[in-house]
Amino acid sequence: MIKWLGGVGKEEDVVVSTRLRLARNMANYKFPEFMTEEEGELVTSEVLNSVRDNAEDSLYRFYRIKDLSDIEKKVFVEEHLISPNLSERTANGSFLISNDEKSTIMINEEDHIRIQVLLPGLDFNHGWEVSSRLDDLLEKEIEYAYHEQFGYLTACPTNAGTGLRASAMLHLPCLAMTGHLNSIIEGLGKIGLTARGLYGEGSKVSGYLFQISNQTTLGETEEDIIKKLNKVVLQIVSRERSTRVFMLDKKHTEIEDKVFRSLGILNYSRIISSAEAMNHLSNIKLGCDLGLIDDINSKKIVSLMMDIQPASIQKSSNTSMSEEERDVYRAQVIRNNLINMEV
Amino acid sequence: MIKWLGGVGKEEDVVVSTRLRLARNMANYKFPEFMTEEEGELVTSEVLNSVRDNAEDSLYRFYRIKDLSDIEKKVFVEEHLISPNLSERTANGSFLISNDEKSTIMINEEDHIRIQVLLPGLDFNHGWEVSSRLDDLLEKEIEYAYHEQFGYLTACPTNAGTGLRASAMLHLPCLAMTGHLNSIIEGLGKIGLTARGLYGEGSKVSGYLFQISNQTTLGETEEDIIKKLNKVVLQIVSRERSTRVFMLDKKHTEIEDKVFRSLGILNYSRIISSAEAMNHLSNIKLGCDLGLIDDINSKKIVSLMMDIQPASIQKSSNTSMSEEERDVYRAQVIRNNLINMEV
Repeated sequence: MIKWLGGVGKEEDVVVSTRLRLARNMANYKFPEFMTEEEGELVTSEVLNSVRDNAEDSLYRFYRIKDLSDIEKKVFVEEHLISPNLSERTANGSFLISNDEKSTIMINEEDHIRIQVLLPGLDFNHGWEVSSRLDDLLEKEIEYAYHEQFGYLTACPTNAGTGLRASAMLHLPCLAMTGHLNSIIEGLGKIGLTARGLYGEGSKVSGYLFQISNQTTLGETEEDIIKKLNKVVLQIVSRERSTRVFMLDKKHTEIEDKVFRSLGILNYSRIISSAEAMNHLSNIKLGCDLGLIDDINSKKIVSLMMDIQPASIQKSSNTSMSEEERDVYRAQVIRNNLINMEV
Repeated sequence: MIKWLGGVGKEEDVVVSTRLRLARNMANYKFPEFMTEEEGELVTSEVLNSVRDNAEDSLYRFYRIKDLSDIEKKVFVEEHLISPNLSERTANGSFLISNDEKSTIMINEEDHIRIQVLLPGLDFNHGWEVSSRLDDLLEKEIEYAYHEQFGYLTACPTNAGTGLRASAMLHLPCLAMTGHLNSIIEGLGKIGLTARGLYGEGSKVSGYLFQISNQTTLGETEEDIIKKLNKVVLQIVSRERSTRVFMLDKKHTEIEDKVFRSLGILNYSRIISSAEAMNHLSNIKLGCDLGLIDDINSKKIVSLMMDIQPASIQKSSNTSMSEEERDVYRAQVIRNNLINMEV
């Protein structure tokens, strides 16, 4: 299973994960976009030193983007451990990952430093705690670019201020199926929040998974951002749950049909794209969370959603594959996983 | 299993069934369309007497259309035992069915008498033998409307002459999938043959099943009609088989995927229409005939194709059901059948 999903999270029937990300820059360097390779290397050293001096560095693995193969980089993205943007920073990009893979420190992404904390279920408070601790740790030796009035300065002004982007990944099949989600998403914009797809900005919605995050980072405290987001997420969770109860009551057989057909297709197909598999896994997750399927662990389905992405499939096969071969191997991986999946 | 499918037929990997039908009329009565009820009754008596006097009548069951419920009539049609046309002849229509259900004598359909012989696999010769025997048996006491030049006279001139319509029901998934079937069907027209859907004239093609039959009944002997049809059917069988070999070689995984997805859906769905089920059963039959599935009897799949038609489903449930309830019950019947199906 994907490591960062480990442990028990709250509201896991609807909330897949919580993510906090802090954007930070060093006072005495240009933003990564304008740096020379040497400057980038200095930034990297400063971050590594600060972690080495202040944390048990044995708890962190360090990777340079340029040392990774294309597949390896994409797998880190597919597992949400690094951002798509960082994976393209071949000149200066690097990152540290904690052994439980819940924390990542990205170096020379759009900003010098991006701290990410990823937790299963809904847990903004713990996420904020962990990311603040990492922030403090780095700040012991690093001088951040900070402005009394504007807060943390960032390469893109939309991140300035707190530098905090907090998000929750929600599984909203019933709100999406009934069409109620559209008005909810419209409403989010009015209160400074936004909904995105599985892989953040610009990514497509897949498997009824929606990332709800704060859009503004300026003019509110971190606590306020988290508090508002937590409240709104809980409201959406509650609406998804009541819609599930309603549908289970009014459309029981239809839901059961949808869920079990997906299980049938994944148990039997011999070729499957990641997009199709995502939709079926999403239906199976719904079936687990509704109690229609009781011998499959819903969280292992979430993990499988990441494991079947193109690069992850490619990597797990240990061979180079065409898209067609990947689709065949994916079907096999899914069949094996479903057979061996226990609660 | 549907009774008339019993026994071993030839070319059963492609040919589901062979059907022969003889249209006959009595010399001294108007065609059914123009008869009074009394005249219709006299026709019925004459046929029944001839069968009683000349055959072991215990081997035949007799039904009057007006005594059957709507569902019962439709089930006889769905099992191909009587024609849709006869099922609507509530005033005078009736029929005799042999105990093996391979022979039917329909009374007061479009013509006074329609003899039908239905056999599994490809067997025009045996079909012709059995139908001729029934024809001779009736003729012992009945005077047929016969013209030296035009042969047997029929209500619709397209049946005059031999009164013979011979057909084979072919399962042609691979010729259909590759698109080769279109040119074959076009070619049939040029040699006086035609291709129809599962339930004859005007019925839709379903489950890749095509009825190939002679279009003309005049100007050729029965033996010529059968000989030509047999030859053409064997050619189509051979082309379907070579296309299957080709596809199994070139598109093995795609075919396997199609077959097993259908098996998955039928094993798991909770709601299914007869049209959708027909397509999946057709794929499963293909899988059996190709050896991809080895624990299911291909012939039981053919039988199931008839058992899941709307009226048959309704009848087997012993309750009155809405279309939605039928779709739910159908999914259940299919799941149970597939689980209990042995070679």
